[in-house]
Amino acid sequence: MRNSATGKIMSSFTPNPDLDLVLVRESSVPPELVWKAYTTPELLEQWFCPRPYQAVEWEIELFPGGAFNSVIVSPNGQRFPGEGSILQAEPNRTLVFTNAVTRGFRPAPAPGEDGFAFTAIIRIEPNGTGSTYTATVIHPDAASKNKHESMGFYDGWNAAFDQLIELMTA
Amino acid sequence: MRNSATGKIMSSFTPNPDLDLVLVRESSVPPELVWKAYTTPELLEQWFCPRPYQAVEWEIELFPGGAFNSVIVSPNGQRFPGEGSILQAEPNRTLVFTNAVTRGFRPAPAPGEDGFAFTAIIRIEPNGTGSTYTATVIHPDAASKNKHESMGFYDGWNAAFDQLIELMTA
Repeated sequence: MRNSATGKIMSSFTPNPDLDLVLVRESSVPPELVWKAYTTPELLEQWFCPRPYQAVEWEIELFPGGAFNSVIVSPNGQRFPGEGSILQAEPNRTLVFTNAVTRGFRPAPAPGEDGFAFTAIIRIEPNGTGSTYTATVIHPDAASKNKHESMGFYDGWNAAFDQLIELMTA
Repeated sequence: MRNSATGKIMSSFTPNPDLDLVLVRESSVPPELVWKAYTTPELLEQWFCPRPYQAVEWEIELFPGGAFNSVIVSPNGQRFPGEGSILQAEPNRTLVFTNAVTRGFRPAPAPGEDGFAFTAIIRIEPNGTGSTYTATVIHPDAASKNKHESMGFYDGWNAAFDQLIELMTA
């Protein structure tokens, strides 16, 4: 048994290429501003989804078991509400959220045919005057990882992070 | 947005009778010994499953994202491995674990026909020289809660807690 420090598990996490997707980006945005962009509803609205999609109506409770909810709106106005939960929040360094459980650690209903469960582990590390951003997105099985990848994970998360950079360096 | 104190969400949790099962037991077992029984593999083997079933091969990492794994063995020797994760661990007071995510916060595969997702919130409060034990087991939907209840949740969790009392007062 190891000690009970919050965050212990993530410092030793090694991605599994069959199940996990990893995106690494270096930028001139300091850790504090990447964190702010990730945890402030008015900022998330402006970068979290690649345009012309937008994520709105954010509800964020920045503690383990707190909500991480938003509604994704398509260009033609279709709304896709998404509920999730924060699992870990270490300011300016680590944010872990998932759609496998919702507020209060309640398990989410099993995802439908087009959906998949995932947990996103966001690490932010100082790098000169900017930062290195690592998004590790982990899945229950290879089918879920493959679905996420073929839906455009890399293009989508890269485009979103470009929007974050644009927003936070404006 | 509320503050990031671990455990914040659970202090304000109100069960939903359509989705949640709640068991409350007062006993002469002090909080420290209920905690010890819940977090020590050799003790869990002796009480966690109502006899003649037994939960063995415990793997417990007592921090958020740590493993909460065991193998349930039936009287005729059938083995049912179960993987889960600790979500919150406040010594002698609160233990939250789930089968909806596994070690490292990886989402679990969707449960099969006979299974269901749940999160167990174990609260232990001092009560005289003993304690009050509250197990709140939350589910994604009414179907899961009903399945758990009809499989004998109350009989099973009561019998297990009887075994805990017997073990820790011996």
